[in-house]
Amino acid sequence: MDRLSLEDVRDRLRAFVAARDWEQFHSPRNLALSVMIEAAELGEHFQWCADGGEQAAAAAREEIALEMADVMHYLLRLADRLDVDLLEACMRKLAINEQRYPVERSRGRSTKYDRL
Amino acid sequence: MDRLSLEDVRDRLRAFVAARDWEQFHSPRNLALSVMIEAAELGEHFQWCADGGEQAAAAAREEIALEMADVMHYLLRLADRLDVDLLEACMRKLAINEQRYPVERSRGRSTKYDRL
Amino acid sequence: MDRLSLEDVRDRLRAFVAARDWEQFHSPRNLALSVMIEAAELGEHFQWCADGGEQAAAAAREEIALEMADVMHYLLRLADRLDVDLLEACMRKLAINEQRYPVERSRGRSTKYDRL
Amino acid sequence: MDRLSLEDVRDRLRAFVAARDWEQFHSPRNLALSVMIEAAELGEHFQWCADGGEQAAAAAREEIALEMADVMHYLLRLADRLDVDLLEACMRKLAINEQRYPVERSRGRSTKYDRL
Repeated sequence: MDRLSLEDVRDRLRAFVAARDWEQFHSPRNLALSVMIEAAELGEHFQWCADGGEQAAAAAREEIALEMADVMHYLLRLADRLDVDLLEACMRKLAINEQRYPVERSRGRSTKYDRL
Repeated sequence: MDRLSLEDVRDRLRAFVAARDWEQFHSPRNLALSVMIEAAELGEHFQWCADGGEQAAAAAREEIALEMADVMHYLLRLADRLDVDLLEACMRKLAINEQRYPVERSRGRSTKYDRL
Repeated sequence: MDRLSLEDVRDRLRAFVAARDWEQFHSPRNLALSVMIEAAELGEHFQWCADGGEQAAAAAREEIALEMADVMHYLLRLADRLDVDLLEACMRKLAINEQRYPVERSRGRSTKYDRL
Repeated sequence: MDRLSLEDVRDRLRAFVAARDWEQFHSPRNLALSVMIEAAELGEHFQWCADGGEQAAAAAREEIALEMADVMHYLLRLADRLDVDLLEACMRKLAINEQRYPVERSRGRSTKYDRL
């Protein structure tokens, strides 16, 4: 069987939303807010970590995967709503970041580009 | 030319991170926190909307697309770090949501499933 | 009876945390992450608003007040942990904002100071 | 001189907002979203910590204090807008948490109340 593509998920999301007549709630602002809310539910799994989150991730891997899916869903809905090609946008942003963070100056450092 | 896939972005991200020796910063917890931070930068574009964000989206479409890319990047990094297949997780979560939100009870309503 | 002060809440929080031996979880990073998580739970009440949130606020006023309290708790814990006087910091930031947003240039506009 | 009170900050905020005719932007939803956005700017200081944020806090204490002030400002504006007494709400929520987290069962554990 073919591998899933982003378009497959987008299309099933579209059908899910259309069947429930939920386009009316999916304004760009509401979708962006929803990305934030779901991102926080993902973060909640790491709220009290003493380590880098490895233990929490091992203990609740599927729950975390499903929270990541929720972030993805609203991101895909927003991309659909704004007619943004998400993967192309990722490549454009990566090209910017490759410029902002020259290898020789940023290697091994987490400093933000405007302070490099 | 072939269309981009999620794997293409993941691979370029991997190379970007490896060249800068940044894996050391990419703990699951730090990546989840980064998803939240980038989601908030996306949300900032809609901070003072009076409408549903349509005007803000029209005025800053590319900036918004690049913020969406930032959310995506950390989500993809986290998926890579935890060895989660993001698209498969999306499909699993959609199946759950299709159960939680039966069409007849949720049509036209934004009520959360635990109150339906 | 005297009005409550921020110190009253801080002190009761301190006792609450100490009784449960939770200082070990309250690193600055974990507390900042907790402020973000609770802020998102507050935001969840406004996720699907069509208006400016007036209806949601009227329908769930006490729930919203308690979510605001959660944000406040972690903010107070962080202030306590970092020995920051929160009210003094508010006044310092307000002085900065009064400079950044001169009345004549910012009146009636939500433009960020770096674009004014 | 008397110590600052929450009311002092609230009143100066009110004057700041009124002078700029910004009440029009301060809908409950926009203020809640703003609390989230400012919380994320606070969190950004801890984005790449390897420790519990102690080093980041020591290196940028005043910047962090001013980000905390920003969260506080929108929280106070929202309280003002919804006519919520924030300190009283804190005390009500603390009473709930004291019940939810009995000392003997929650001591030394970060487990959420619904799993205790």
